Amino acid sequence: MGEKKFINLVDTTLRDGSHAVSHEYDVKQVKAIISGLDKAGVRYIELSHGDGLAGSSYNYGWSKTSEEELLKAASDVIENGKLTVLLLPGIGTVEDLKMACNYGAKVVRVATHVTEADISEQHIGMAKKLGMMAVGFLMMTHMVPVEKVVEQAKLLESYGADYVNIADSAGAMLPEQVTDRISAVVDALNVPVGFHAHNNLTLATANSLSAIKAGATFIDGACRGLGAGAGNAQIEVLAGLLQKLGYKTGVDFYKIMDVAEDVVEPIMKRPQVVCNAPLMLGYSGVYSSFLLHTYNAAKRFNLDPRDILVELGKRKMVGGQEDMIIDVAYELSKNRG
Amino acid sequence: MGEKKFINLVDTTLRDGSHAVSHEYDVKQVKAIISGLDKAGVRYIELSHGDGLAGSSYNYGWSKTSEEELLKAASDVIENGKLTVLLLPGIGTVEDLKMACNYGAKVVRVATHVTEADISEQHIGMAKKLGMMAVGFLMMTHMVPVEKVVEQAKLLESYGADYVNIADSAGAMLPEQVTDRISAVVDALNVPVGFHAHNNLTLATANSLSAIKAGATFIDGACRGLGAGAGNAQIEVLAGLLQKLGYKTGVDFYKIMDVAEDVVEPIMKRPQVVCNAPLMLGYSGVYSSFLLHTYNAAKRFNLDPRDILVELGKRKMVGGQEDMIIDVAYELSKNRG
Repeated sequence: MGEKKFINLVDTTLRDGSHAVSHEYDVKQVKAIISGLDKAGVRYIELSHGDGLAGSSYNYGWSKTSEEELLKAASDVIENGKLTVLLLPGIGTVEDLKMACNYGAKVVRVATHVTEADISEQHIGMAKKLGMMAVGFLMMTHMVPVEKVVEQAKLLESYGADYVNIADSAGAMLPEQVTDRISAVVDALNVPVGFHAHNNLTLATANSLSAIKAGATFIDGACRGLGAGAGNAQIEVLAGLLQKLGYKTGVDFYKIMDVAEDVVEPIMKRPQVVCNAPLMLGYSGVYSSFLLHTYNAAKRFNLDPRDILVELGKRKMVGGQEDMIIDVAYELSKNRG
Repeated sequence: MGEKKFINLVDTTLRDGSHAVSHEYDVKQVKAIISGLDKAGVRYIELSHGDGLAGSSYNYGWSKTSEEELLKAASDVIENGKLTVLLLPGIGTVEDLKMACNYGAKVVRVATHVTEADISEQHIGMAKKLGMMAVGFLMMTHMVPVEKVVEQAKLLESYGADYVNIADSAGAMLPEQVTDRISAVVDALNVPVGFHAHNNLTLATANSLSAIKAGATFIDGACRGLGAGAGNAQIEVLAGLLQKLGYKTGVDFYKIMDVAEDVVEPIMKRPQVVCNAPLMLGYSGVYSSFLLHTYNAAKRFNLDPRDILVELGKRKMVGGQEDMIIDVAYELSKNRG
C-alpha cells in the first residue's frame, strides 16, 4: 500500500441542498456558508439552483434570490476554494455559463442522464474556452450496465472534461455496485473520477467510501447531508472518517462540523432523514420527479403507490416519461382484477 | 452460492429507542408499536428501559410507565413475535428477570461490557431455568482485539446462550472491522451470531450488511433508527434492502414502513439525525455517558471537548472511569501551555 491519494471533497450544500430549502437561500446565508466552508478548507464549493443554472422556474421551483446575486455574494467571500456551478443542458445554456463565469465561478459541472453525455459537449467546450475547469457529470448511473457508464464517461473525457463525476441520483446503489462502476471508469479514463451519493438506502457514506477505495478522488457531500429527497453524503462525517482512515482532504474536521451545526442546521427547514417516500425511490431506483405523478395514479386506480414505483423501476423509466405512469397503473390494476 | 440464510430482524424501537423518547413510552404507544411490528412479521421485539430491566432510576432516567405495565400491555397484543427484554447485570437482577418472564417475556438479552461476559452467567442460567431463550450480548466490541471478542463470546456460549450478539455500541466501527469480528465469532461458535449497530458514523446499515455477509443471522434495528445518540440501523430500510438482496426475513417491507411512518414517527421527540456530539463519540469510539463530564471538563480547562474525547478514545476508557476525564483534561491543558 503506497501513500493514500488526496481526496477532494466537493460541497453541494448550496446546490443539491437548495432543493431541501425550497431554493430559498438568501445572500446572507450564502455568504455565511461559503465563508465557513472556505475557511474549513473545502476546495470545491457548488452553488446553483438545485436543478442547475437557470433552474429557477415554475417547473423546478422558483429561487428566492437570483443566481447572479448569490454568485456575486459567494465571490465576495470565497478565498481559497473554487466556486463551482452545476449546469444541466436543456435547463441551463451557454449564456448562463458565461454569466456564472462573469460572477466568479471557476468550475462548471455539466450534468446529463447517464446515456446522454453527448449533449454536454458544447458546454464543456465553452467552459474550457472561458478558462474554467469543466466536469462531466453522469446522473442515474445505476440504470445501465457498467460498460455503458464507461462508454459515456469516455465521451466526456473526449470533450475535455477535467474529471468525470458518477452519480447515484436515486440513491439506489449498494457498495459493491459503486465499486464496479467506479473501478471500471477509473481504469478506462486518464482524468480523475468522482462520485455523488444519495442516502435513500442509508448507504451514502458507505458508498462514498467504496468509491474512494475503487479509485475516486472527488467526492460530493453536503453539510448534514442536505439535498433532494434523502439527501447526500454528510460531508462533515466524510471529513472525519477520511481523517480516521489516513486520507488527506485539506478539510479541517472540527471546522466543517461547526459549519454544519452552527451555520447550516439553523437554516434547514426539515431534518434530513430517510422517510418512506425517498426510501421507496431508492428501493425501486426511480427518479424523484415520478413521485407526485405516481401518487396521483395510485389514487385514481386504487393501487399502492409503492407497487407502481417498483414497476417503473423494473421498466427503467427515465425523466420525461412521466406520462407512462398512467399506463403502468392501468396495467397493474387490470392484472390485479 | 447456496440459498441465503434466513435473517432474524430484532426490533429495538421500544428498548434502545426508549432513550430517544426519554423513557416516556406509555401503554397506548407500546400496544400500537408492538401490534404493528407483530403484524409486520417481526419475530423478536425488544421492550425494556433503554438501559435494560430496572433501568428506571435517577442515574439512567425515570420511565414514565413501569416495566410491569408496559410488558403486560405488550403481552396483551403480541401474537406471533417473541417479546424480548434486555438485562444489564448490575442494573437488572434475576428478580427483574422473573418478573419479565411472568409478564410474558420469552427472550432475554443479557448485556455486558465486551470484557465482562462472566457476570452474565447466572442470568443466562436463570433464563434457561425459566424456559426462556437467552442471548449473550457484548457491548463496545470495537475496543478490544478480535481474539478478545471471540474469547468472551465463547464464554457466553458455554453459559448456554442461544445466540451471541456483538454490539458496536459507540457506532465506531467501519464495515471491515465488523466483518473481522463477526466472521471470527461465527467461526468459533456453534450457536448463531447477531449484530447491533449504531449510526454515529452513518454506517449502521452498511455495517449490518457486512455482518450478514460475515455470517450473522440476527440483526438489530429500530423503526426510523430510533435509539440512543445517533440511533440504530433503520429496520424498515434493512427489511427493504434484504428483500432486494434476496434474503428472507419474514418481515413485510410495506407493513414495517407503515409502522415506522404512521406509528413511530408521530411519537418521536426529535429526528434521528447525526449531529456533532454523536459523530464525535463515533469518531473517538467513546461511550455516550462520557459526554456531559467531557463538556464540563472542557469548560473548566478551556479546552475543545472534542480533543478530550479523542484522548479518552485513545486511552480506551470504559464506563465507570468518568472521574478520569478531569485528569485527562488537566494533562491536555498542561501540554498545551
